[in-house]
Amino acid sequence: MRKLVIVNGPNNNFYGIRNKGQYGNQLYADLVEELKEYGATLGFEVESFQSNGEGALIDYFQSLYYEAEKTGKKIPMVLNPGAYTHYSYALMDALESVHTLVPAIEVHMSNIQGRDNFRHISVTAAECLGQVSGMGKTSYKMAMFAFKQLEEEGNL
Amino acid sequence: MRKLVIVNGPNNNFYGIRNKGQYGNQLYADLVEELKEYGATLGFEVESFQSNGEGALIDYFQSLYYEAEKTGKKIPMVLNPGAYTHYSYALMDALESVHTLVPAIEVHMSNIQGRDNFRHISVTAAECLGQVSGMGKTSYKMAMFAFKQLEEEGNL
Amino acid sequence: MRKLVIVNGPNNNFYGIRNKGQYGNQLYADLVEELKEYGATLGFEVESFQSNGEGALIDYFQSLYYEAEKTGKKIPMVLNPGAYTHYSYALMDALESVHTLVPAIEVHMSNIQGRDNFRHISVTAAECLGQVSGMGKTSYKMAMFAFKQLEEEGNL
Amino acid sequence: MRKLVIVNGPNNNFYGIRNKGQYGNQLYADLVEELKEYGATLGFEVESFQSNGEGALIDYFQSLYYEAEKTGKKIPMVLNPGAYTHYSYALMDALESVHTLVPAIEVHMSNIQGRDNFRHISVTAAECLGQVSGMGKTSYKMAMFAFKQLEEEGNL
Amino acid sequence: MRKLVIVNGPNNNFYGIRNKGQYGNQLYADLVEELKEYGATLGFEVESFQSNGEGALIDYFQSLYYEAEKTGKKIPMVLNPGAYTHYSYALMDALESVHTLVPAIEVHMSNIQGRDNFRHISVTAAECLGQVSGMGKTSYKMAMFAFKQLEEEGNL
Amino acid sequence: MRKLVIVNGPNNNFYGIRNKGQYGNQLYADLVEELKEYGATLGFEVESFQSNGEGALIDYFQSLYYEAEKTGKKIPMVLNPGAYTHYSYALMDALESVHTLVPAIEVHMSNIQGRDNFRHISVTAAECLGQVSGMGKTSYKMAMFAFKQLEEEGNL
Amino acid sequence: MRKLVIVNGPNNNFYGIRNKGQYGNQLYADLVEELKEYGATLGFEVESFQSNGEGALIDYFQSLYYEAEKTGKKIPMVLNPGAYTHYSYALMDALESVHTLVPAIEVHMSNIQGRDNFRHISVTAAECLGQVSGMGKTSYKMAMFAFKQLEEEGNL
Amino acid sequence: MRKLVIVNGPNNNFYGIRNKGQYGNQLYADLVEELKEYGATLGFEVESFQSNGEGALIDYFQSLYYEAEKTGKKIPMVLNPGAYTHYSYALMDALESVHTLVPAIEVHMSNIQGRDNFRHISVTAAECLGQVSGMGKTSYKMAMFAFKQLEEEGNL
Amino acid sequence: MRKLVIVNGPNNNFYGIRNKGQYGNQLYADLVEELKEYGATLGFEVESFQSNGEGALIDYFQSLYYEAEKTGKKIPMVLNPGAYTHYSYALMDALESVHTLVPAIEVHMSNIQGRDNFRHISVTAAECLGQVSGMGKTSYKMAMFAFKQLEEEGNL
Amino acid sequence: MRKLVIVNGPNNNFYGIRNKGQYGNQLYADLVEELKEYGATLGFEVESFQSNGEGALIDYFQSLYYEAEKTGKKIPMVLNPGAYTHYSYALMDALESVHTLVPAIEVHMSNIQGRDNFRHISVTAAECLGQVSGMGKTSYKMAMFAFKQLEEEGNL
Amino acid sequence: MRKLVIVNGPNNNFYGIRNKGQYGNQLYADLVEELKEYGATLGFEVESFQSNGEGALIDYFQSLYYEAEKTGKKIPMVLNPGAYTHYSYALMDALESVHTLVPAIEVHMSNIQGRDNFRHISVTAAECLGQVSGMGKTSYKMAMFAFKQLEEEGNL
Amino acid sequence: MRKLVIVNGPNNNFYGIRNKGQYGNQLYADLVEELKEYGATLGFEVESFQSNGEGALIDYFQSLYYEAEKTGKKIPMVLNPGAYTHYSYALMDALESVHTLVPAIEVHMSNIQGRDNFRHISVTAAECLGQVSGMGKTSYKMAMFAFKQLEEEGNL
Repeated sequence: MRKLVIVNGPNNNFYGIRNKGQYGNQLYADLVEELKEYGATLGFEVESFQSNGEGALIDYFQSLYYEAEKTGKKIPMVLNPGAYTHYSYALMDALESVHTLVPAIEVHMSNIQGRDNFRHISVTAAECLGQVSGMGKTSYKMAMFAFKQLEEEGNL
Repeated sequence: MRKLVIVNGPNNNFYGIRNKGQYGNQLYADLVEELKEYGATLGFEVESFQSNGEGALIDYFQSLYYEAEKTGKKIPMVLNPGAYTHYSYALMDALESVHTLVPAIEVHMSNIQGRDNFRHISVTAAECLGQVSGMGKTSYKMAMFAFKQLEEEGNL
Repeated sequence: MRKLVIVNGPNNNFYGIRNKGQYGNQLYADLVEELKEYGATLGFEVESFQSNGEGALIDYFQSLYYEAEKTGKKIPMVLNPGAYTHYSYALMDALESVHTLVPAIEVHMSNIQGRDNFRHISVTAAECLGQVSGMGKTSYKMAMFAFKQLEEEGNL
Repeated sequence: MRKLVIVNGPNNNFYGIRNKGQYGNQLYADLVEELKEYGATLGFEVESFQSNGEGALIDYFQSLYYEAEKTGKKIPMVLNPGAYTHYSYALMDALESVHTLVPAIEVHMSNIQGRDNFRHISVTAAECLGQVSGMGKTSYKMAMFAFKQLEEEGNL
Repeated sequence: MRKLVIVNGPNNNFYGIRNKGQYGNQLYADLVEELKEYGATLGFEVESFQSNGEGALIDYFQSLYYEAEKTGKKIPMVLNPGAYTHYSYALMDALESVHTLVPAIEVHMSNIQGRDNFRHISVTAAECLGQVSGMGKTSYKMAMFAFKQLEEEGNL
Repeated sequence: MRKLVIVNGPNNNFYGIRNKGQYGNQLYADLVEELKEYGATLGFEVESFQSNGEGALIDYFQSLYYEAEKTGKKIPMVLNPGAYTHYSYALMDALESVHTLVPAIEVHMSNIQGRDNFRHISVTAAECLGQVSGMGKTSYKMAMFAFKQLEEEGNL
Repeated sequence: MRKLVIVNGPNNNFYGIRNKGQYGNQLYADLVEELKEYGATLGFEVESFQSNGEGALIDYFQSLYYEAEKTGKKIPMVLNPGAYTHYSYALMDALESVHTLVPAIEVHMSNIQGRDNFRHISVTAAECLGQVSGMGKTSYKMAMFAFKQLEEEGNL
Repeated sequence: MRKLVIVNGPNNNFYGIRNKGQYGNQLYADLVEELKEYGATLGFEVESFQSNGEGALIDYFQSLYYEAEKTGKKIPMVLNPGAYTHYSYALMDALESVHTLVPAIEVHMSNIQGRDNFRHISVTAAECLGQVSGMGKTSYKMAMFAFKQLEEEGNL
Repeated sequence: MRKLVIVNGPNNNFYGIRNKGQYGNQLYADLVEELKEYGATLGFEVESFQSNGEGALIDYFQSLYYEAEKTGKKIPMVLNPGAYTHYSYALMDALESVHTLVPAIEVHMSNIQGRDNFRHISVTAAECLGQVSGMGKTSYKMAMFAFKQLEEEGNL
Repeated sequence: MRKLVIVNGPNNNFYGIRNKGQYGNQLYADLVEELKEYGATLGFEVESFQSNGEGALIDYFQSLYYEAEKTGKKIPMVLNPGAYTHYSYALMDALESVHTLVPAIEVHMSNIQGRDNFRHISVTAAECLGQVSGMGKTSYKMAMFAFKQLEEEGNL
Repeated sequence: MRKLVIVNGPNNNFYGIRNKGQYGNQLYADLVEELKEYGATLGFEVESFQSNGEGALIDYFQSLYYEAEKTGKKIPMVLNPGAYTHYSYALMDALESVHTLVPAIEVHMSNIQGRDNFRHISVTAAECLGQVSGMGKTSYKMAMFAFKQLEEEGNL
Repeated sequence: MRKLVIVNGPNNNFYGIRNKGQYGNQLYADLVEELKEYGATLGFEVESFQSNGEGALIDYFQSLYYEAEKTGKKIPMVLNPGAYTHYSYALMDALESVHTLVPAIEVHMSNIQGRDNFRHISVTAAECLGQVSGMGKTSYKMAMFAFKQLEEEGNL
C-alpha cells in the first residue's frame, strides 16, 4: 500500500471545537479517522500529522523527503496549512524543496475566496500541484481522489 | 438521473489546440465526452455548455434556474469561467442570483496561484460552494465527485 | 409623445427572483410595467430593454443614436448597467459616443456606496448626466422625473 | 404638514457666486426659496440649514433627532455635505447615529463621478438611504420626490 | 493573395460619428474602404470585422484559426480592441491561443499614453507582435506595412 | 485635588442613544457622572468636555495648556476623539503642542481594530501617551487608573 | 492703502509656545505685530485672523469675498492652513470659490517636504497662486513681497 | 481564586535587557513578579507564560481552552504578542477559536501608533476584547483591572 | 529633401551586441545605415544621433528646435528613448517644449507591454504623436512611413 | 559682495520659448539678466548656471562646495531643478552633501501642486531650506529676498 | 580564539538536495565543514546552528547574548534567515535586542534582488550590520572576512 | 595581472567630506588608494572610475566591454551606483548588456535596508552577480575578495 499523508497546520486540530455551527459537531479525531478510512478505500495507507508550528511543519516535510528517498516511493501529501497559507514563505520554500518526492495538494475546508481579503491569496499553493477549497471535509477526500487519479495515470 | 452541467467559459473550447504540451493532445470534444462518461458512473446526466461571451453565460445560468424551478430539482454546475474568473462581477452577480437552485463549484485545469498575478484572485469563486484548481481534467471530476458527496449527505 | 428608454444590464431581469427580501416580491415584468405607467404620467412613451451582454447593450445604444438622428429628437435613457457599472470601459466609451443624442442617467436600486468596495466606483456614470442610487424602484422614477424637469427647462 | 430639512454643507451657500457658468446665475437664497416652494407642492414644510463647519452640521443633526423623538415624527433630510462627503467620518458616524429618526438622502448638484478622483468616493452616502448627483438643483427635488414616495408607501 | 483581417472592437464603428473633431469627418465605412484599398496595394486581400461584444470577437479569432489551419496559411490580424484593450483578459487569452496561426498587431487611432490613466495599460498587447498608437487611420496602415515586411523577410 | 479632564469628540454624546444594544442603555450624562465618581475615588477632580467640532476641541486643549501653565500643575486628559481619531491631523498637531503640560491617553469604547478598515489607524494616538480600546466605559476608567499610576510614580 | 490679510489655521497661534527650539522664543502676538509692520513698509494694511476651526476659516474667506465685492478691490491673502493643508477639501473648495477676489499664497514656516509623509501633499495649494515653505516667519514676508510684485505689475 | 494568565510573545523576556533606557532597569523576572503581586490584590491567581515561538503560543492557548472547559471557569488572558501582533494570522485564528473560554486583552508596553508603520496595525487585536498600549508595565495592570471590572459586572 | 532624425537613447547602440539572439546579428552601425537608406526611399535625409545621457538627449532636442526655427521647416524625430522611456520626466518636458517644431514618434524594437512591469508605462509617449513597439527594426521604418503620410496630408 | 548662484535644471533655458502664453514673452537670457539685477540691489553678486544633465548639475554643486571651503564664505543657491525635482535622488544626495556650505532654496515658476500628480512631490526639497512655487519669475526673487533676510539675521 | 556563529534558517539545511543544479552537488554538512575550515584560517572558532523554526532561532540568539555577557566577548553572527528574511518582524526585534553583544551580517546564497518581488525586501537586514547576497557559499566567507576586518580595526 | 575596476556613481567622490562622522575622516582619494593596494594583494590591477552622470557611467561600462572583447579577458567590476541604484533602469539595462564580459558586484558603504524606504530596493542589483552593503569601505574589499574566489574556482 502506498503511504499518503494528511497534514494539518495551526488551529485545524480545533475542528469541531472552534466553530461547531460551521463544520458540524464532529471532532478532529473523528475527522482524521473518517479520512483514514476513506483513504484506505482508495488503497492508501494514511498517516496524519498536525502542528501549530511553522518550523515543525517544515521539519515534517523534510522527514518525508528523506523517507521517500529511502523507500524510492513518492509520498503524496494532502496539506491544509491553516493561516500559514497566506504568509509563510518559509513553508512555500519547503514545499518547493521537497516537491519532487513529496507532491502536495493544498486543501481548505472553508471557501477562502469568500472570507477576509487576506485569505484570498495563497503563497503556498504556488508550490503545490493544485488547490481545493470550500467543500468542508470533502475537500480532503477530493485531494485523495485526485492523487488516486494521478497514480492510475502513472504520474505519481 | 440528476442533471449536472459542465460549463466552460472563454477559450476553454480550445483545449487541446491552444496548448498541446500542457494538457496532453486530447481535444475539447473528447474531454467533454470523457467527463460525461465519468459523470454517468456517479449517476449524473451531464449536459455541457460553452461560450466565449459573458452575456451568453449569464443567459445560460438563468435558463438553468428556471428549469430547476420548474422541475423542483437543483442543478449542480461545474464551472470553468476562463479568464472571466478574474474580473467579471456580472458573472459573480449571476452566480449569486441563481445559487439557491444552481449551486456551482469553480474549476481550473491549471494552478492559478502559480501563474500571472491577476490570476491569483477569483471574483466568481466567492459565490460558488468552493474551488478546485491545478489538476488538469481531474479538476472537473473532483467537482463532480464533491457534488456526489453532497447528494449522499442530502445537501443537494 | 417623447420616447424614453429604460435599459437594464446583467441580472437586473432577476429582480424579484434574486433577492425577494431586499426588493419586495414584485417581479421584473411587473416592475417594467409600473415604470412604463409612471413614465406615461410624465408624458413619456417608455421602451424597455434588457440584456446580460456588454456587446448587446452597446449595440442597443448605437441603434438609439441612429433612431434619434433620424427622428431629430433626443432619446433620454434611464440606465441600470448592473455590475458593468464598475468595470466596463466599453460601456463608458459607448455612452460617451452617443450622449449628444442619447443622454443617460444612471440608476441603481441598492445603495452602492454601502455595499462591497468594488461597487463604490462607477466608470459609466462619468459619461452620464448624473446618478441615482439606493431608492429601490423609485430610483428609476426619480430619473424619469429629472428628464421631465430637463424637458421643461428646454434642456432635452 | 410633515417637516423636511434641506441641509447644505461647506461652500454650498456660494451657489450662484462661486461658479456662475456652471449652475446658472440664480443665487443661493433664490435656490432655497425655489426648493421650499417645490417641497410645499409635495406637502412638506421645508426648513433650510447651511453651515461651513463639520461640528455645526453634527450639532444640527442631533437637534433634529431630539425634535423627532419629541414629536414622534421622523424628519427626512436632503443633505448636500459639500466636500465633507469625501472625508468626514465624523459626519458619517453622526448620520449613522440619527438615521432611525432622521433618514437622509445625499445630493450633489454636479456629477461627482466625472470630477476629481477624490470626489468619486462618498463616505457619508453609506449611512444615507441613497444618493443623487449631477442634476443641478433638480437633484434636491428628486430627493424630495423620493421622500414623498416613501411616505406614500408608508415607509417614512 | 494573402488574406489579412482588420478587426475593430467596441465603438470603433462609430468612427466619424463619435468624435468628428478628433478624427476628421470620414465615416467608418469609408475608413474600411480606404484601408482595404491600401492593403491591396501591398498585396493583401483585406477582410473587415467589427463587433461590440467580447465573446463575438473571440469567436471570430477562433474561426480565423480554423480557417488558417485548413488553408495552411497564416492570417495576419490588425486589431483595434477598443476599450477591451485595458481589461479583457479573455481577449488576451484568445490571442494567446490563436497567435501561432493568427499573429496580431494591436492598433489605436489615438495616443493612449496621453489619455486617461486606465488607457495607459494594454493587457492584450502582450499577446500581440507589437502595438501602434496615436497616428489616426495611419496606425492601421503602419500595421499592414509591418506585416508586409514580415512577409518579405519570410517571417509570416 | 488634581484636575483631570475627560474629553469626548463627535457623536460620543449620543452614547446610549446611538447604539443601545452595544453599550447598554445608560445615557451620556449618566456615563459622565459615573466616570466623575470613579475619578474622585482616585483623587481626581474630573472635568468633562464634549464637542462635535474639530476647532472647538483644539480651542479647549489650548485653554487647558494656559490653565496648567498658570497653576503650574499638569492636567491629565482622557480623550476619546471619536471619528477624528482617524483623519484629524489638526488634532494630532494640537496634542503635540500641548502634551508637555496636558498629557493625554486616547480611549475608545469599541474595539477599533475589529471594525471598518479606516478605524484601524489612529493619527492622534501617536501624540498621546498611549491608547485603550474595546472595553466600553471601562476604557475611560483604565486611563484614569493609569494616570493615577503615573502620579504615584512621580511621572505626572 | 490696500488691505492684505494674514490667515492662520489650527495651532499656529501656539507659535513660540509649541516648539520654542524650532522657531525661536518670539510669541504669536509678537509675530503678528512684526508681520503687520513689515506689511506696512510695503504699503499694505494688514489684518490678521486665526482660527482652529475649518468652518470658521471658510466663513472668514467668504466674508472677505463679500467685502472685496463691495469695495471693488481684491484682498490678497497670506494663508497658513496648518494641518488642514493636507486633507481639507472643504478649504480647497472655499479657496476656489473666492479666488477671483481673494487670491491667496499658501505659506508654511517649516519645510513640509522634509517632515512626515502626510505633509508632503497640499490639497489647498492647488487653489492658491503659489506656495512658500521652510523659511520660518520669513515665509510670510516672502508672500507679502510677492503680492507687492503682483500689484506693481498690475496683476492684483 | 480565579486564574488569570499573562502571556508574553517573542523578545518580551528581554525586557530590561533589550532597552534599559526605555523601560527602566527592572528585569523580566521582576516584572512578572510585580504583575503577579498586583493581580493578587485584585483576587487573581496569575500564571505567567512566555515563548518566542508562534506554534508554542497557540499550543498554550489551546491548553488553556481545555483547562477552562474542564473547570467550567473562563480564564482571562493578558496577552502581549510582541511582533507577532502585526502579521500572525495563525495567532489571530487561535484567539478566535478559544475566545469563548479564554477571553483576551492585548497589551503593549510601547505606544505602537508612534513607532514604525508596520506596528500601527494589529491583526490579533481584532479577536481580543480590546487593546492597551503605551503605558509601560502599567499596560498589563490596566488589562487586569479591566478583567476585574468585567468580573464584577458578571461578564467574565 | 526634408531632414528627419533618428534618435536612440541609452544602450541602443549595443544593438547586435547586447542580445544577438533577439534581434539577429546585425550591428548598430548596420542598422543605422539600413534605416538611412530606407528613409531616402521616402525622400528623407536621415540624421542619426545616439547618447546614453539624459542631458545630452535634451541638448540635442533643443538644438533641433533652433535649427527648425532657423530653416522654417519642421524636423520629424523617430525616437527610441531606451529605458528613459519609463522614468525621465525631464525628457518628457523636453519633448513638450520642442514638439511644435520637432514632432516625435516613439519607437521600441521589443514589445514593451510583454516585458517587465516597469516597461509597460511610457512617460515620454504622452508628448509624442504616437508610439510603435514590438516590430524590431521595422518599428523605425513604420515611424518614418507615418511621417511620410503626415507630409503627404500636409500635416508636417 | 556675497556670491549667490541661480541654478536652473532641464528645459528651464527654454523659458519664453516653451510656453509663451504661460510666462510672458521674455526670453531666458532676459530673465537671467533681470534676476542678476535684482540680486545686485540686495547686495548679491549673482552667478547663473544651467544644465540639462543630472551629472553636470551635481558636478556644479560640488565645485561650489570646494569654492566655499576655500573662501570660507557660504554660497547661497536658488535652485530650479526642473523635472529632476520629482525623481532625482542623486540630486537629493548631492544637496545633502553640500548643504552646510551651499544652502539652497528650491523654486518653481509654476504652481506644482496644481499640475500633474507626479509633480506634487519634490524629492529634492527635503534637502533644501525651503521651497517657493507658483509665482513665475518672482519665485526666484522671493528666494533671493529670503537669503537676504537670513544674512541680516546672521544665519548665512 | 574568538567564537563566531553561522546560523541558517528554514530550508537552508536542504542545500545540495533542494536545487542541485543551482549550487553544485555539495551537501549541507559539507558546506558547514568548509565554512568552519575557512573560519579557522581567519582565527575564528565557528559554531553552526540551523533551525526551521522562528522561535527556535530567537531562542538561540538570546542564548548567545547571555553567553557573550558571561564571557565578556562579543559573538559575531553570520546569519542566513531563509524566507524569514522577508516577513519575520519577530526575528528583526530579536536582532535588535541582542545586537550590542551579538552583531550580525545577513547573507544569502542567491541574488535576492533578481528573484520574486517579495524577496527584494529584507526586514531583518535593518538590524544587522550589513548584507551580502548572490555569491553562493562565498557569501558566508565574505561575511567572515568582514568580521575579521572589524576585529582588526578594533570594532568587534 | 587581471584588471579589475572600481566604479563609483554620484556623490561617492564626496566620501570623507559629505559625512565625516559616518565613515571616518579618510578622503575619497585615500579610499581609492587603499582599495587599489588591497586589490594588488589579491593579484588585481585596480582601475578606478567615478562619475556623477548616468550617461557617463554607461559610456564607461560599454568601453570596458569593448576592451574585454579585445583582450579576451573578462573585467570584473565593483560598482557603487550611489542613488542611481534605486531608479536608473538605464544603468540596469547597461549592466545587462555588458554582463557576459564585465560581471559586476554591487556595493554600498551604508546599510541601505536600514535607511529611507526608497533605498530598500535596488533596480541595478538584479543585473549584478550579487550585492554587499553596510560594511563601509570593507564592502568594496569583500567584493574584490569574492571576485578572487570566482577566479580561483575558474568562474571568472
